[in-house]
Amino acid sequence: MGYKMRLNGYYEDLKQSYLFIKIAQKVKEFQKARPETEIMRLGIGDVTMPLAPAVTAAMRRAVDEMGSAETFRGYSSDWGYEFLREAIKGHYAEKGVKLDLSEIFISDGAKSDAGNITDIFDADSKVLIPDPVYPVYVDTNIMAGRKPEYIAGNEGNRFLPLPDGRPADLIYLCSPNNPTGAVYNKDQLQAWVDYANANNAIILFDSAYEMFVGDAELPTSILQIPGAETCAIEICSFSKTAGFTGVRCGYTVVPNALKRKAGGDDVSVNSFWLRRQTTKFNGVSYISQRGAAAAFSPEGYTQIKENINYYKRNTKMICDMLSELGIWYTGGVNAPYVWMKCPNMSSWGFFDFLLDKAHVVGAPGEGFGDNGEGYFRLTGFGAAENVEKAVKKIKSVM
Amino acid sequence: MGYKMRLNGYYEDLKQSYLFIKIAQKVKEFQKARPETEIMRLGIGDVTMPLAPAVTAAMRRAVDEMGSAETFRGYSSDWGYEFLREAIKGHYAEKGVKLDLSEIFISDGAKSDAGNITDIFDADSKVLIPDPVYPVYVDTNIMAGRKPEYIAGNEGNRFLPLPDGRPADLIYLCSPNNPTGAVYNKDQLQAWVDYANANNAIILFDSAYEMFVGDAELPTSILQIPGAETCAIEICSFSKTAGFTGVRCGYTVVPNALKRKAGGDDVSVNSFWLRRQTTKFNGVSYISQRGAAAAFSPEGYTQIKENINYYKRNTKMICDMLSELGIWYTGGVNAPYVWMKCPNMSSWGFFDFLLDKAHVVGAPGEGFGDNGEGYFRLTGFGAAENVEKAVKKIKSVM
Repeated sequence: MGYKMRLNGYYEDLKQSYLFIKIAQKVKEFQKARPETEIMRLGIGDVTMPLAPAVTAAMRRAVDEMGSAETFRGYSSDWGYEFLREAIKGHYAEKGVKLDLSEIFISDGAKSDAGNITDIFDADSKVLIPDPVYPVYVDTNIMAGRKPEYIAGNEGNRFLPLPDGRPADLIYLCSPNNPTGAVYNKDQLQAWVDYANANNAIILFDSAYEMFVGDAELPTSILQIPGAETCAIEICSFSKTAGFTGVRCGYTVVPNALKRKAGGDDVSVNSFWLRRQTTKFNGVSYISQRGAAAAFSPEGYTQIKENINYYKRNTKMICDMLSELGIWYTGGVNAPYVWMKCPNMSSWGFFDFLLDKAHVVGAPGEGFGDNGEGYFRLTGFGAAENVEKAVKKIKSVM
Repeated sequence: MGYKMRLNGYYEDLKQSYLFIKIAQKVKEFQKARPETEIMRLGIGDVTMPLAPAVTAAMRRAVDEMGSAETFRGYSSDWGYEFLREAIKGHYAEKGVKLDLSEIFISDGAKSDAGNITDIFDADSKVLIPDPVYPVYVDTNIMAGRKPEYIAGNEGNRFLPLPDGRPADLIYLCSPNNPTGAVYNKDQLQAWVDYANANNAIILFDSAYEMFVGDAELPTSILQIPGAETCAIEICSFSKTAGFTGVRCGYTVVPNALKRKAGGDDVSVNSFWLRRQTTKFNGVSYISQRGAAAAFSPEGYTQIKENINYYKRNTKMICDMLSELGIWYTGGVNAPYVWMKCPNMSSWGFFDFLLDKAHVVGAPGEGFGDNGEGYFRLTGFGAAENVEKAVKKIKSVM
């Protein structure tokens, strides 16, 4: 007879994520019914601009190296290549954050790290997550048997919730935020850092959209906030910085000053993440790492900034339209996402309205959490001419 | 005061893995004491031959595509690109295994999948692992709080242990084996498959070294064994097949016929792995996927086979030497690894002897589990001229 083999039952507690499936289905039906109508997509969270020339040049050189016996490279070091960690260290130095190379771990992307980092914490950790939110924070914790609590984003706090006194072990923050595009200022992040230090909590800070911040007063890293090095882990990526969604390269910073109890001892959280990664991960493509380092070269940096500014001009068109129409929104200015209030409609009601009348596709806020109901996400990641057309069309129907 | 935040205490149950650190340290000391002596490395598990020309050509084209607006690609599909899954499907068809594309998941490598797949099973799963073994199977389960049981490999079973009647939920098999190079035949794998089906267990089959099998009678996939589709998951990689240790691309096959209980229901294990991967992973570099597909093109296949044959000629030199010396060994013929008995010495004693007298570095078997004590791993992954020199030198000192 043997054992009663079982799968991880917590997977059955996951809500099925219908958001993008449902969007795709509705768009397909619309297109079938009206095949002549051009649809404009402002719902996507994926980049569309090609890689910067400095990046592709570095990647071509890396491919050549891998094809030659003298320059071939096998497994990389446990942390990732030093040339890339040096480039990231330099990027942080320009923000006024001093990192040691041992604090930087190269990965295949922020989603992997955000999911995998849950491994190193106790199964019973109490998790606090803002709502609305990037669904990965919620789902990865449910998979591990944790029951996240939510902290409400709303118009009152401009979708930038602050500590409300509830205790927590792990706190997820994403700024600039996905899906709302809202950005915490220094005082607000300081409030979270002070709260985490006072409560022995760890903040998991997702800074994937940091390069979209133009306002010099706004923080682009939680490590710019005094005290963060004893309570925060920062997860970032080249996906939105350098258009790497299809190239796969990210990084996580775990400060050496960050210590917590395991068993009875105070241990370095960095050493736990190192152990997790050396055991369950084997590094990132050398070609991707060379490309990522080139994105932070002087030439590459100028080029990736140009792409980001292109997306930001798109986002500005969306913001200007909403201001003109007198519709409440947040985000947009320092983020690729605009989070707007649906005009007296539910999220999905507005989705249907916009598709039917303006032939524009966006993302219903309800798909990002209960507090997203009644709101809607538009993005600047499309082609400028499409965004321009979409904006005109929306204005004409509202 | 707040919560008593804790890290995952199971990490403290891990044995520190000193094997390769200790090897590096001893080599460094030796080199310092005798700087003029040339050291020959037969201990490495990493490839050294450059990528095949068909692979680098495909990767160069992929980089060009990513640099152009018309052909740029962002996120790939949840399973990975269809062109690569078609190539893998073709590779299996040649072994007589018919796969559906939905059964193939592209990943960044076998180590990631071998580690991450533990997520989808109940925390209390009973785990059975051969000893000696690739340490990742053991460590990833200890991290999840499981207490693996070991099944002994030894000279009696030629390091190919068979079911011994103990119940288990998860069984790890690796064939051709790392570290022993031993390969299960069809009858032996059939015994494991029958045992797993009878006991409701799942076999996690690591076939990373399958391309080294030359003997047509030996299985290169557990899915060649009748009944495997209801009890086995196969994890493989391009690392040793096409020299991708620095490029990162692997795959896992989860048959649609494989079902197990979760909560109260029978569910598809494939659907659980899909959910894990879509939540905690975001795909593999497009460039790596194009390179991997090219490795399975007619031209690429011929080229990667040439590289494998190069390594196999190295391994044969090592086997011939051991036969000549009358030393017991296994592996080698259908694997890059040779597993030899230490001549009246402990694993580390023989390491020191070989380094001191022959200036050859190998891997002490004790580092792969208790049953590895008294054995030693040599590999064919080096340059032919070095292996030749090393073999001569070993013969001269034994």
